[in-house]
Amino acid sequence: MTSGNARDTRPHVVIVGGGFGGLAAARELADEPVRVTVVDRCNHHVFQPLLYQVATAGLAPSDITVPIRWRLRDQKNTNVVLAEVTGIDPVARSIMLDGEPNTLSYDYLIVAAGARHGYFGHPEWEANAPGLKSMRDAHDIRQRFLLAFEHAEVALTASERDAALTFVVIGGGPTGVELAGAMAEIAHGRLYQEFRHSDPRKARVILLEAGPRLLSAFPEDLASKAQSALERLGVEVQLGTPVTMVEAGAVWLGEKQIRSEAVVWAAGNVASFLGAQLGAPLDRSGRVKVEKDLSVPGHPDVYVVGDLCYVEGEDGRPAPGVAPTANQTGTHAAKMILNTLRNRPHTPFKYFNKGDLATIGRSKAVAAFGKLHLSGTLTWFLWLFVHLLYLVGFRNRLSVLIQWGYAYLTYQRGVRLISNSRPPA
Amino acid sequence: MTSGNARDTRPHVVIVGGGFGGLAAARELADEPVRVTVVDRCNHHVFQPLLYQVATAGLAPSDITVPIRWRLRDQKNTNVVLAEVTGIDPVARSIMLDGEPNTLSYDYLIVAAGARHGYFGHPEWEANAPGLKSMRDAHDIRQRFLLAFEHAEVALTASERDAALTFVVIGGGPTGVELAGAMAEIAHGRLYQEFRHSDPRKARVILLEAGPRLLSAFPEDLASKAQSALERLGVEVQLGTPVTMVEAGAVWLGEKQIRSEAVVWAAGNVASFLGAQLGAPLDRSGRVKVEKDLSVPGHPDVYVVGDLCYVEGEDGRPAPGVAPTANQTGTHAAKMILNTLRNRPHTPFKYFNKGDLATIGRSKAVAAFGKLHLSGTLTWFLWLFVHLLYLVGFRNRLSVLIQWGYAYLTYQRGVRLISNSRPPA
Repeated sequence: MTSGNARDTRPHVVIVGGGFGGLAAARELADEPVRVTVVDRCNHHVFQPLLYQVATAGLAPSDITVPIRWRLRDQKNTNVVLAEVTGIDPVARSIMLDGEPNTLSYDYLIVAAGARHGYFGHPEWEANAPGLKSMRDAHDIRQRFLLAFEHAEVALTASERDAALTFVVIGGGPTGVELAGAMAEIAHGRLYQEFRHSDPRKARVILLEAGPRLLSAFPEDLASKAQSALERLGVEVQLGTPVTMVEAGAVWLGEKQIRSEAVVWAAGNVASFLGAQLGAPLDRSGRVKVEKDLSVPGHPDVYVVGDLCYVEGEDGRPAPGVAPTANQTGTHAAKMILNTLRNRPHTPFKYFNKGDLATIGRSKAVAAFGKLHLSGTLTWFLWLFVHLLYLVGFRNRLSVLIQWGYAYLTYQRGVRLISNSRPPA
Repeated sequence: MTSGNARDTRPHVVIVGGGFGGLAAARELADEPVRVTVVDRCNHHVFQPLLYQVATAGLAPSDITVPIRWRLRDQKNTNVVLAEVTGIDPVARSIMLDGEPNTLSYDYLIVAAGARHGYFGHPEWEANAPGLKSMRDAHDIRQRFLLAFEHAEVALTASERDAALTFVVIGGGPTGVELAGAMAEIAHGRLYQEFRHSDPRKARVILLEAGPRLLSAFPEDLASKAQSALERLGVEVQLGTPVTMVEAGAVWLGEKQIRSEAVVWAAGNVASFLGAQLGAPLDRSGRVKVEKDLSVPGHPDVYVVGDLCYVEGEDGRPAPGVAPTANQTGTHAAKMILNTLRNRPHTPFKYFNKGDLATIGRSKAVAAFGKLHLSGTLTWFLWLFVHLLYLVGFRNRLSVLIQWGYAYLTYQRGVRLISNSRPPA
């Protein structure tokens, strides 16, 4: 990139991705005798657990993002590069940037490139059923969601209006549950006061899950509590219902069609294509099957962390694709690099399950901490507290607290901005 | 649009535009025996006086916007339509929506379509020198501004780095002064902590004004105080300096070239093209020369308000293109319609000058209230207070207050989000 570090003899650690995994690794390397370069195609780190609130107009994009540079500003050994990594050559020990003949060499590489939503072999569904991984996705979903109410208001026929006011969320994991809950709460809340020809309270929010229950990673009793809470909010939960096709304006369940213009995909992930460039075995969603120390088989100088890595715990179960896993794997990989430099032995990664939390609209949440299962209003406050605690940056915490307080007291959503507003034709 | 009001015999008032003028008119018609339709191509009202703070990453877009529907939700006689007005037929008494054979008839029309930035016959300059009128503009400028620092960080030559760190603001009115001050404050503030290969403190911010002084609408002593304050912030103010050409990467002043990738245009306005469809005389920037009661000559059922209208005060000077003028003209036009309905005489519009305020970065502002001229820190607090007071919505006020408090105490900017981030090539 630049010649500034050409004579720097410290080992060069390159980190691909500024999400939870990449940032945790970079933080661990602060003040260590290495130089670090973090590469991301975005200038900002996104607090993904709250992305669904941006998608449903509860929070502003800037409430849950911080510039990666700002987060790492105090680490003088760390450099941040805004670029897209388009290839990895683990033999030449370099990565390609922006598809150009622009490469960056490394001594150690940590790949924290994450996952995108996957469509089970139907990439053509994405155009009509966007997923929720990046800020751009959240923005896209927010536009569709808000425009649907505008469309219903000017609809010429009742069936057109009904289609505009039908929201479909595909996938009953935490993201799907939280999205569907938030959508129902908004549609069935005070929005009706603003419309004259349509009634947002008549909106249907349909949550489709192919498996036998919601929240498959949670204990069964909590999943059933979450389902009841969603149904009380007016969400129609349909279990054992695989989607067979998504097209413009409709979702198909076998022979049955649901007309909807706002469909969100929360059903599956595929790992970043960068995983396949490491010459290591992949699982069926494209995650790299790493060694116990998180290094790549055959390339002990390359580590994979976060949603892109497949690592089994002592019980033989893979660590889940959640923020704590990303944090823990990122930290572990950085420690292994430091162990190598200090000629210390490597240790196997151990996933520490901090518990699972999901929220279902206003005042409801479920949580599992080992055998302890919680639900109800106090659990919801716990959810609020944990999310504020982990959110990076004091300003963001304060801002989120205020948006939440406002929404709680007034039943209003603050961020109902349609960019480049135009009515759906 | 819909048939819901087909048998409604109340006069139909259509308002084009949901800015200050359109909203003021709509508010005045609440609870009156008319039905009102507000048409805007955006779903939100923008508080334009703070738009420059979005452009410089100090505030989030949602902090200074409210949905137009939300603002008018309590007026049961008022309907909001999200559509672009593409034509007006004052003879047939109808407006065209979205360029389609989609029309809306009116009994009374208030045109509050505002102005865009004008390039004095050089529309080709816009691509390289965006203006600041809409949220999309602010977003565009914010991207260019933040990406410039990224570009400087990866620049391969010193001259490339210098060009990236040169910001040019064209036009020394309030918008140009406020933008240049904010840019200098950010560049010369704590941003340098985040960069390793470039130094944002070396950034140049150049404010170009064709006329002999800044803030031509303000008294001369305040203009000169504003200039000193800008210069203390490190802004290079060049007066009597008309721009002769803008091209990609450079601004030309006659033979002299300034290389810059982030150029902002704050030098002139042209009124909306809708003004020309009313068959009335226009001034040279396209504003409609209205009658004393703000109606259009020859069309007493059509009124023009806000930045699109040209009306002279008793002193023969035109009312300035500022928010108070828009508010006052919007209210007056609505009152004239109600007078017509009640067979009362029309009254001439009188502009009440509430005073002029402009801020120059942290802790500095200038204000003129008739013969009273103020400047300094107390004036800055007055500026803060007035802007918070006029900002619509409690949530927005609180959020802006917090962003400002945070920025004041920490010298940091909160909203440094580059959407769709990619490095400049």
